[in-house]
Amino acid sequence: MIVVMRSGATQKEVSGVEALIREMELTPQAIVGTDLTVVAVLGDDRKKDGDRLEQAAGVDRVMKVLQPYKLAMRADERQRSAVTLGGPQTRSEAVVIGGDAAGVPVIAGPCSVEGEREILAAAEACKAAGADALRGGAFKPRTNPYSFQGFGEDGLKMLAAARDATGLPVVTEVLTPTDVDLVSKYADCLQVGTRNSQNYKLLEACGKSDKPVLLKRGMAMTLDELLQASEYVLSGGNQDVILCERGIRTFENHTRNTLSLSAVAELHRVSHLPVVIDPSHGTGKAHLVPSMALAAAAAGCDGLAIEVHPEPAKALTDGAQSITPAVLAELMPKLKKVAEAVA
Amino acid sequence: MIVVMRSGATQKEVSGVEALIREMELTPQAIVGTDLTVVAVLGDDRKKDGDRLEQAAGVDRVMKVLQPYKLAMRADERQRSAVTLGGPQTRSEAVVIGGDAAGVPVIAGPCSVEGEREILAAAEACKAAGADALRGGAFKPRTNPYSFQGFGEDGLKMLAAARDATGLPVVTEVLTPTDVDLVSKYADCLQVGTRNSQNYKLLEACGKSDKPVLLKRGMAMTLDELLQASEYVLSGGNQDVILCERGIRTFENHTRNTLSLSAVAELHRVSHLPVVIDPSHGTGKAHLVPSMALAAAAAGCDGLAIEVHPEPAKALTDGAQSITPAVLAELMPKLKKVAEAVA
Amino acid sequence: MIVVMRSGATQKEVSGVEALIREMELTPQAIVGTDLTVVAVLGDDRKKDGDRLEQAAGVDRVMKVLQPYKLAMRADERQRSAVTLGGPQTRSEAVVIGGDAAGVPVIAGPCSVEGEREILAAAEACKAAGADALRGGAFKPRTNPYSFQGFGEDGLKMLAAARDATGLPVVTEVLTPTDVDLVSKYADCLQVGTRNSQNYKLLEACGKSDKPVLLKRGMAMTLDELLQASEYVLSGGNQDVILCERGIRTFENHTRNTLSLSAVAELHRVSHLPVVIDPSHGTGKAHLVPSMALAAAAAGCDGLAIEVHPEPAKALTDGAQSITPAVLAELMPKLKKVAEAVA
Amino acid sequence: MIVVMRSGATQKEVSGVEALIREMELTPQAIVGTDLTVVAVLGDDRKKDGDRLEQAAGVDRVMKVLQPYKLAMRADERQRSAVTLGGPQTRSEAVVIGGDAAGVPVIAGPCSVEGEREILAAAEACKAAGADALRGGAFKPRTNPYSFQGFGEDGLKMLAAARDATGLPVVTEVLTPTDVDLVSKYADCLQVGTRNSQNYKLLEACGKSDKPVLLKRGMAMTLDELLQASEYVLSGGNQDVILCERGIRTFENHTRNTLSLSAVAELHRVSHLPVVIDPSHGTGKAHLVPSMALAAAAAGCDGLAIEVHPEPAKALTDGAQSITPAVLAELMPKLKKVAEAVA
Repeated sequence: MIVVMRSGATQKEVSGVEALIREMELTPQAIVGTDLTVVAVLGDDRKKDGDRLEQAAGVDRVMKVLQPYKLAMRADERQRSAVTLGGPQTRSEAVVIGGDAAGVPVIAGPCSVEGEREILAAAEACKAAGADALRGGAFKPRTNPYSFQGFGEDGLKMLAAARDATGLPVVTEVLTPTDVDLVSKYADCLQVGTRNSQNYKLLEACGKSDKPVLLKRGMAMTLDELLQASEYVLSGGNQDVILCERGIRTFENHTRNTLSLSAVAELHRVSHLPVVIDPSHGTGKAHLVPSMALAAAAAGCDGLAIEVHPEPAKALTDGAQSITPAVLAELMPKLKKVAEAVA
Repeated sequence: MIVVMRSGATQKEVSGVEALIREMELTPQAIVGTDLTVVAVLGDDRKKDGDRLEQAAGVDRVMKVLQPYKLAMRADERQRSAVTLGGPQTRSEAVVIGGDAAGVPVIAGPCSVEGEREILAAAEACKAAGADALRGGAFKPRTNPYSFQGFGEDGLKMLAAARDATGLPVVTEVLTPTDVDLVSKYADCLQVGTRNSQNYKLLEACGKSDKPVLLKRGMAMTLDELLQASEYVLSGGNQDVILCERGIRTFENHTRNTLSLSAVAELHRVSHLPVVIDPSHGTGKAHLVPSMALAAAAAGCDGLAIEVHPEPAKALTDGAQSITPAVLAELMPKLKKVAEAVA
Repeated sequence: MIVVMRSGATQKEVSGVEALIREMELTPQAIVGTDLTVVAVLGDDRKKDGDRLEQAAGVDRVMKVLQPYKLAMRADERQRSAVTLGGPQTRSEAVVIGGDAAGVPVIAGPCSVEGEREILAAAEACKAAGADALRGGAFKPRTNPYSFQGFGEDGLKMLAAARDATGLPVVTEVLTPTDVDLVSKYADCLQVGTRNSQNYKLLEACGKSDKPVLLKRGMAMTLDELLQASEYVLSGGNQDVILCERGIRTFENHTRNTLSLSAVAELHRVSHLPVVIDPSHGTGKAHLVPSMALAAAAAGCDGLAIEVHPEPAKALTDGAQSITPAVLAELMPKLKKVAEAVA
Repeated sequence: MIVVMRSGATQKEVSGVEALIREMELTPQAIVGTDLTVVAVLGDDRKKDGDRLEQAAGVDRVMKVLQPYKLAMRADERQRSAVTLGGPQTRSEAVVIGGDAAGVPVIAGPCSVEGEREILAAAEACKAAGADALRGGAFKPRTNPYSFQGFGEDGLKMLAAARDATGLPVVTEVLTPTDVDLVSKYADCLQVGTRNSQNYKLLEACGKSDKPVLLKRGMAMTLDELLQASEYVLSGGNQDVILCERGIRTFENHTRNTLSLSAVAELHRVSHLPVVIDPSHGTGKAHLVPSMALAAAAAGCDGLAIEVHPEPAKALTDGAQSITPAVLAELMPKLKKVAEAVA
């Protein structure tokens, strides 16, 4: 941290700040400038709270220097973690996301599991279109309490059946700590959704799961906060975390959210974790999904999560942002070409 | 809902939309304009998903007309609910928030419970300064997993002891559904924090509690979404919900959040629920708290939640935004005068 | 500035940064920490561009320490500038905004000058309701090229006539540098609108005017940028600048903009310039204007700019956010009481 | 427009709204629903102000249906305008942006013209790296009045000399209406910058120029507002408008702005105008520029504007976001491959 003193701060105030820093078991180093004085803090201050210093007499503000995450941080330029979804233990095809994996794996499927027959049909259509994994919600976090909330455990069973039939590993959302074991039993990857991205008790519980975690960015989350959220899972012992950008909330009104694709290169710069893009929630409009999926691939993402529904107009949830299997089938070879172009 | 057809939509497409509306057990009424056609949807479409219509052939967009909440909605201009914190059952003074209550009750206290002696000293200082209720976190949702996470149940006991000593009812945060009963046992009011404002499983659990709920607005939540979140608690059977504006996330960088005081009058216009303002998180800077507390009172809020710490520079959390009891004592009579001025 | 080196930066890279700082005629001071090295820059770096340093080898980022404005900056806690609108030279009543002036002067009037009779009627109604100055647009910056663009110089004459009749000094917008002289001839105060808040050629021209300038904050402007914009006027020789917060653009949809009242105390903390609040544009909804005007007064603003129209439903522009003279008349005594309560 | 009446609005209030609509020379059609009544407005209401209706008794809100721009609007799916920069009249190579043009033309160059030798060197380096046009600022809109403001007309001459030497057509910014003729004399394309995107007097003046206009999106501008701004130029008689997305202002702090690439497909859906992306301002970080340039190409943009500087660490302005000619040279073939992949 760097403590910036107010212009006109007294020597006594500077000494007070130095004392406070020593109390925090860190080392102060004052730098007296022509216009003002700053006090640099030496030592690992990542776990220290700058608030104390900000409140001290004569202090104008405190600037952080060290990143507040350690496990998610990239040690060197070559470190790129790979996370595997599925494999022999669930008799599905193993899908590798991140690391040196070529191409852009696509996790596709409907927003919600809408019935046994429906999810099976969707999974088969996604598989035929070239998707690599299946998504679908059994537990749905709905803004409105009167909206369809998902089938719960029955939905998980339907997903597992669809996996058995197609070999596609399954990604599905978990909403609360007590459901982590249940969802881990059926799924190949736990999704922590946007609305729960700072539900730390849930993240802690996911840190104890033996299944990978797809962690979605919150609507108003900075990348620093996303990495700190991932740190909850990582520090719990689960190393298989995939970060997912799915759009942030801004003043824009032509989309449901603003998909911030610069997150891909920036997260890769500071972290070794793989980054998946969700162009469906990131735009909220089916007609924008293909171009943003291609853009995400060109930006270097490690995978895509796309809402696909055989009949979007009949979807129980999120129909407006779901593409059809036919659109996905047309998209897949282009994605491959783009990924090759930027490799 | 109003379905706006694309310019050039065919009669067949309009008929398709009408059929879809009838399938949803609602009544369509097409209006053919000079430039385009819209189809009005008659009937209560609050629980219907406009997505289906948005995806239908020839549709440009769907505009919502009815508000998607019923229990939180104000029936008429006179309806203003009052929520009581504390009272005989916890041997504390009953504090009424909302309804016709005069003045602006202040819920004051440190961000975190930092020890038995500390919370007692803070409670006594807040009481002496004129506060009406005590706040303090026993379970802390921290952005960083390595930060202090609160004392848990021990913290709840310390809060209860502080209440016993001062008579101030206690407001404290609950983080996860399984803790709702535990926190309800000790607290006079459950706080659902910003990061959990769309943790619907937690809201559902709070709907079963016999204690009032102070529901904080999420950092990127619209007022519609806040009211829908409150609907989760209300529809669970708990009628005692207090809404709390605590700042939204914007591009502004002179504050931690942007406190949106127009939320007070707007929430009062559409809902009967009381509205509390938190100028501490709303600004993140102690020096801005008094003026924003006064502004909130002038805007007509039903109460204030303010972080107060005897020694902000030594606070374990949020010191930068905590005011001292002396500042609170100076603020209280001004708040009273402002509330009278706008009554 | 503080230059933060990348973790693992070499001694050669640190030396390179030091050389670059010396080239900028500033003094470097390196601080070697356990995890990384930072280089403090000593000397007045306000006019230096940190970009050069940010691009140097081994640099992670550059943090600014000094505020990039000098004339707008408050020298000490007592400095509060007062700006006077009107007076003998235009035979209007002098209205003092800022400084030690008691109360909250209100600049009221319609969005646009809609005709000679209309502006006169509006001015008289505002005067009768207790307003202190008259606002009204002769040159209108309209989002849509086909909307009413104002009466131009004829509108200025109508404003001057309304001033002659009522004694209210006139505030009106100027859109382009070549019109500054013309508008200065008729008006008592030049308004630079939100959409021109970073139109630096216009600000420079206003710096040469002998009339005060009401500078509105841009929709996406930080306070630092607002103060730098004011610096364009101040450094041109015109010391009479009033800052105006009128809402910023955020994701909120219950208002047209989000009125950020914390700007009042923060601008007062860093600058000596007076601060006026515009609750009309700040909310875009007439029903929210009175409560936000009162909140602004409680927050300590130096004045208010309020859109008032005798018949809002017939206003050519901005009717939705205009209050009636009757609402203003009811508001004025409350404003006075609130200002007294917080004095 | 659709006028939504308040729940409980009286028949008289509905009649009042109908009368007001007829007064606006439009036709009302009331639709009485079970919960509330809406009144549809038939006729071209694009030039009418919904504010009047919003203020009428009994009205809850007014929803717009027609887009408020006509010339920028796409008539049918095939309409895609092409704009040509340069050509015989300035003895430069003609560069076509938009229409059916293959590939992604790149407008490259330094932020500012920094001297005759410097801009020539930059132009030659850009040309050698494969750029199609030259950018560089002679008039610079700087946030800080004490920063370098550009060389003015001398800078324009230097740009023209660089064009003569390389054949690259020149794009440069114009800040004020009175400079439009001057800049048109030297440049092949006028740039209207972000800070002037709602400087309507400037846009009107550009509508009279015989040179194409590159119109940058404002930091807080919706796409609707951008298209209305373009309508100012188009309705002035200048049909050669290029829209440019350059990032919007959000809470994100890892970039200077948030580049919103979904704007490409959405603008193409509603407008025939070409769309150029500026990944330099869109991120503010040189290390993010290549991946976002590739993403923009994959998203289907019609061109790119990229800041390129031979020695970014010595740039007078915007060094932090400038890439080197070497980075550009490496990027160009990848851009070509991506453009082919998505064609």
